[in-house]
Amino acid sequence: MKKIGLAEGGGGSATNKFIKELFISRLGNDASEKMPDAAHVETDGRTAFTTDGFVVRPEFFPGGNIGKLAVCGTVNDLAVSGAKAEYLSLGVIIPEGYEAERLEKIVDAIAETAKRAGVKIVCGDTKVVEKGAVDGLFINTAGIGRVVNDWTVFENIKDGDAVILTSDMARHGMSVLLARGELGFEGNIESDCAPLNKMLEALHEYDVHFCRDATRGGVAAVLNEIADGAKKGFLIHEADLPLRQDVGNLCEILGFDPLSVANEGLAVILVSASDASHVIEKLKNFEEGRNACVVGFVNGAGRVILETAVGGRRVVDMPAGELLPRIC
Amino acid sequence: MKKIGLAEGGGGSATNKFIKELFISRLGNDASEKMPDAAHVETDGRTAFTTDGFVVRPEFFPGGNIGKLAVCGTVNDLAVSGAKAEYLSLGVIIPEGYEAERLEKIVDAIAETAKRAGVKIVCGDTKVVEKGAVDGLFINTAGIGRVVNDWTVFENIKDGDAVILTSDMARHGMSVLLARGELGFEGNIESDCAPLNKMLEALHEYDVHFCRDATRGGVAAVLNEIADGAKKGFLIHEADLPLRQDVGNLCEILGFDPLSVANEGLAVILVSASDASHVIEKLKNFEEGRNACVVGFVNGAGRVILETAVGGRRVVDMPAGELLPRIC
Repeated sequence: MKKIGLAEGGGGSATNKFIKELFISRLGNDASEKMPDAAHVETDGRTAFTTDGFVVRPEFFPGGNIGKLAVCGTVNDLAVSGAKAEYLSLGVIIPEGYEAERLEKIVDAIAETAKRAGVKIVCGDTKVVEKGAVDGLFINTAGIGRVVNDWTVFENIKDGDAVILTSDMARHGMSVLLARGELGFEGNIESDCAPLNKMLEALHEYDVHFCRDATRGGVAAVLNEIADGAKKGFLIHEADLPLRQDVGNLCEILGFDPLSVANEGLAVILVSASDASHVIEKLKNFEEGRNACVVGFVNGAGRVILETAVGGRRVVDMPAGELLPRIC
Repeated sequence: MKKIGLAEGGGGSATNKFIKELFISRLGNDASEKMPDAAHVETDGRTAFTTDGFVVRPEFFPGGNIGKLAVCGTVNDLAVSGAKAEYLSLGVIIPEGYEAERLEKIVDAIAETAKRAGVKIVCGDTKVVEKGAVDGLFINTAGIGRVVNDWTVFENIKDGDAVILTSDMARHGMSVLLARGELGFEGNIESDCAPLNKMLEALHEYDVHFCRDATRGGVAAVLNEIADGAKKGFLIHEADLPLRQDVGNLCEILGFDPLSVANEGLAVILVSASDASHVIEKLKNFEEGRNACVVGFVNGAGRVILETAVGGRRVVDMPAGELLPRIC
């Protein structure tokens, strides 16, 4: 089986051949071209710009791999900010001796996900480091896109705004945890990893006040960041929280609060109460939004309050530390 | 001494505090703000977009460190493409247990170099991975900027164009190699690592046909890439190649061809012969260009030919493999 050597990262002829054969031919803007150091693209007016690094272990998990994740993460960061994702960069750090076939699968996933999301990968960089210097592949993607609305402004959030989750919670975190095979039992939870951009672009006609995807730290982290930044509170109804039973059971067994577990295909949307049902209806037209629902409301200043199924109330705090390392 | 833990990468309150205190306060667009997942910036018309990963070892070397390098590398990729560098993203992968003070020095270098280059760091991402998963810091920067001219078009290159090197060769590679301390002797060669954007922006009034910085693979790699892409040849005069004597001596002792050694502050510029002296004059106004000179000419189709000091000729080939791993 072909393995990747240091020469592939040296900047000489072996690097050019490697990049052409393994990356350009798959990412295929124009397979006859070298990928340029700097791509020149058209933009107009306000542009969103974001970056994300991916260190997930294992690199392959049910529902995705580090390559698919690297596209979804950056596309979603652009989309939740209110922009139309357009162009991505791709930076890859590869350990010497990495199997070429494995890398090909990951680059195929990058190409396929970029196609699904309708974005182009226009520039890239690869580095090969000596065996032992890193425990697998690291990927960075940055992305740019055209701003349609600004969904990142805390001041736009109003009391009474509906809180929508676009999907059921905690699938990504639990999928990766199961894939590590350290639990002593197996399960079949697929990550929710998906590009949300086309679905979110369909919401620009509605009165969306704020949007963010609930990755590391889960829904709890997003709601607390908003509460902190906007000086607002939330009342969330536990009974309305979308959660698959097997995912919920696994969280309970392992002592995780599903509100704090990472997602890679779930956005939190704050929308004026009058538009909430229209937004839900629109979201349900998309595969990624079929479980979308209103889970609560913006409620004065202060904390994130969860009203439990039996009518009690508890504060949902910001997750404090590292719940699940290497989740993305 | 304070060390960075996994909690700083978990996405919760520890992460927010860490990013605010260690990054935002230093990179300081507005120290009171969280760095957003996606920044919204103004662009207009054609935009250059690039990315680069940095894995250099050691992380600190005479003349710079991995942070300074990460800004210069991306700023220079934008500048040599003919764009005005404007905004950078910053992705950092940190091993658990990394010394906070060391990271602070690196982020300070990032801030200082960004200021010197006149670019803003507008978005970022940090990941912390378990001890042993990576042998030090990895940085990725992506950058965007306004295209002024397109200096990446092989078809613009004409027979007779002058080949300009903006600086003397091989200082970055030799500096890093010495800093590794594995040679059994010491030396004092500073890396040429520098942002070239202000100097290159001053050349947009001239008839520049092509520009590229000579990083991995050195000047030899750049000339061969151009020869291959443009179906042109070069005649280079060895006696005119700018090379510091101590750097040249070190290359000779170690068996390196200085043409193939990495630089981080050297651009290769192809310019119409009639504008060459004006461009040299302009370059010499800048500290980074004080050793700029014409080293040869574009010369029909084919190979990169070096005319040696004694009048012989040899072909300069594309460097084949990994000469110096982890140089950037």
